[in-house]
Amino acid sequence: MNDSIRPGVPAGLRDMLPAEAAQARYLEEKIRGVFELWGYGEVVTPILEFETTLAPASAAREGQDLFGFLDRDGKLLALRPEMTTAIARVAAERLAGEPPPHRLYYVGDVFRQDESQEGQGRQFKQAGIELIGEGNAYADAEVILLLCECLAAAGLNEFSVGVGQIDFLRAQLRALPISDDGRSVLKEALARHNRVAFEAGLRAMVADDDTVVKAMASLSLRGGADVLEAAKELALSDDALAAVDHLETVFGLVRQEGGAGRVLVDLGIIRRFDYYTGVLFDAYAAPLGFPIGGGGRYDNLLGDFGRPGQAAGFAIGLERLHIALEESGAAPRPEVARYFVYDETEPARAMSAATLFRRDGHSATCYLRPISAKLAARLAGPGAKVVRASDILEQE
Amino acid sequence: MNDSIRPGVPAGLRDMLPAEAAQARYLEEKIRGVFELWGYGEVVTPILEFETTLAPASAAREGQDLFGFLDRDGKLLALRPEMTTAIARVAAERLAGEPPPHRLYYVGDVFRQDESQEGQGRQFKQAGIELIGEGNAYADAEVILLLCECLAAAGLNEFSVGVGQIDFLRAQLRALPISDDGRSVLKEALARHNRVAFEAGLRAMVADDDTVVKAMASLSLRGGADVLEAAKELALSDDALAAVDHLETVFGLVRQEGGAGRVLVDLGIIRRFDYYTGVLFDAYAAPLGFPIGGGGRYDNLLGDFGRPGQAAGFAIGLERLHIALEESGAAPRPEVARYFVYDETEPARAMSAATLFRRDGHSATCYLRPISAKLAARLAGPGAKVVRASDILEQE
Repeated sequence: MNDSIRPGVPAGLRDMLPAEAAQARYLEEKIRGVFELWGYGEVVTPILEFETTLAPASAAREGQDLFGFLDRDGKLLALRPEMTTAIARVAAERLAGEPPPHRLYYVGDVFRQDESQEGQGRQFKQAGIELIGEGNAYADAEVILLLCECLAAAGLNEFSVGVGQIDFLRAQLRALPISDDGRSVLKEALARHNRVAFEAGLRAMVADDDTVVKAMASLSLRGGADVLEAAKELALSDDALAAVDHLETVFGLVRQEGGAGRVLVDLGIIRRFDYYTGVLFDAYAAPLGFPIGGGGRYDNLLGDFGRPGQAAGFAIGLERLHIALEESGAAPRPEVARYFVYDETEPARAMSAATLFRRDGHSATCYLRPISAKLAARLAGPGAKVVRASDILEQE
Repeated sequence: MNDSIRPGVPAGLRDMLPAEAAQARYLEEKIRGVFELWGYGEVVTPILEFETTLAPASAAREGQDLFGFLDRDGKLLALRPEMTTAIARVAAERLAGEPPPHRLYYVGDVFRQDESQEGQGRQFKQAGIELIGEGNAYADAEVILLLCECLAAAGLNEFSVGVGQIDFLRAQLRALPISDDGRSVLKEALARHNRVAFEAGLRAMVADDDTVVKAMASLSLRGGADVLEAAKELALSDDALAAVDHLETVFGLVRQEGGAGRVLVDLGIIRRFDYYTGVLFDAYAAPLGFPIGGGGRYDNLLGDFGRPGQAAGFAIGLERLHIALEESGAAPRPEVARYFVYDETEPARAMSAATLFRRDGHSATCYLRPISAKLAARLAGPGAKVVRASDILEQE
């Protein structure tokens, strides 16, 4: 084929043929089913939004360059890079008059110019939920449990959800005897996951070695419930202690309701984004080096849309989940029983016979030309039951 | 609320809240189910394509202005305005080595800058199929029957599919004793649905009154099978006669296989687009003035991607279908049984009780604060069964 007439698709984008699309659909339906089971209702928002709606969240995250463009009216639009902002917008604009909490879910395509994200291209699909209008530990626990349920329902056997608490690190930073400018330098180093810069800054600004050691150790608290005890030892203030207490409550609820063995404490989880408050979590499947899902609490987001409110949620990257399932040999193989109906002389008879199968709820393809039994068997493809139309019609 | 912090969505776009989203999802699943029943497999293509891939089809249709923009690499991309071009691209690029026919379907969002389209905004959803690699009357009949099945499965009681044949009008034009330039003038008038200009041009170029009358009458052939006899009388050439014969065969197959009462002949259906060949059809639901779906044969499209081949298909506008169902009082009202679980003192007990309901496959929401029985009944919302956690847990 001539390359000049083989346009393909732009970099970072791809097509899915039926076998893969059926698997992706199966996964999506499984997760959608769990969302519905937990009483969440779907919200569908446009793929295009005003650039000004999306930009604040986008600018704060790395690798989220927007696909932006001018529409005919001279308005700057962009393809959404994630769904949480849109759901927050809808909640503020449309649901403010109804009693909280609101349980909302979405399944949708999102877009980022950056091609370097592992396991996902410039267009990828996210399924997620937002629990809006409730800020307590029960709500945090529900969100984390629901993430675990979704991954389990998708067929993922080995995964873990690391749960952190941004309030703990923020309180630790606040407790340091340094200037606000100094704190900004340390925060920036953390946001960049640059512990060397963090430690260097810390040592330059804080003389007390015990404080430095505690602050550094705070970043590496990862493990089971015992890590929470260690965190209490390291707490530099009552605020930091309260943040650990909250996480302990959430952790206890999650373990009690079936999340034991799935969750671990990870106080080193950090988001660049100022709108996060409270718990933060990322889900990992054993062989993959990137999270397949994650979320947290972001009580500071809804205020951007004029209706301050508490909210927590998560998003699962469906392509990444698909990869994780493939890697662990647990990818869905939806079985489709299918009839291949033919006739040696009259395709109209094959059409009539196929109609009968479909009325009984069976998938049936009919061959639209006269064809021999032998050729029919060859063309039917794997998994299809070959049926001669006359054999069926005569039985009627 | 302050308007400056209520961004809303760009013109021609909208949000769907859970009640509406559930209906839309239900419709989509019904139609998807019919596609699968007929042995079609899903293809998923990117929402963004190279502008050069989409432009030819787009330029030929009115009201399909592309949303185009430059990506970071300086490539001109656009949001797809319809799905057929992408499916043809995939068939040419990925399926050329496999034995035809290919039965492919899609459900996806498409985008047009034009806001004036009735019943659909600048982003709307199309569900459709392409039957690729078969060009006979059986294939045409299958595609038309499948469209009828989808609309019936969606719950639409009153609809009709008008079936035309572009080859008939093309043959009639070819048979006129006029120059190629003259023919172009007439074709353009037809494409613009301007019969006055068509007749004026015709009368200026053709002296023979009988021919003029036949050519004009050819545009108004609409009705049952008897219209096909009238068309034969009006045929100006053997090619025109052959085109009617083909349509008669298709029509007979469709009526035989359950389409009787759904289909009518409409030889006045015209598409602007040169890639159409053979049958053309549009589906109308009684009260709406715009088609809810349509399609045809376009044996000239695949050649654009370097692999000439026969193809026919259709697309259904899901928002338009939804409107038609609402108008006819047949919109789906998916019933969702839902439990609202609460506890007077300990939300953790509500969480545990809700888990039990979910394990049995019931949708359950739990209230995440201590709450009285009276307030629970008020907050549960319509359709929810209110359950006190203790009552359930004690039974265990």
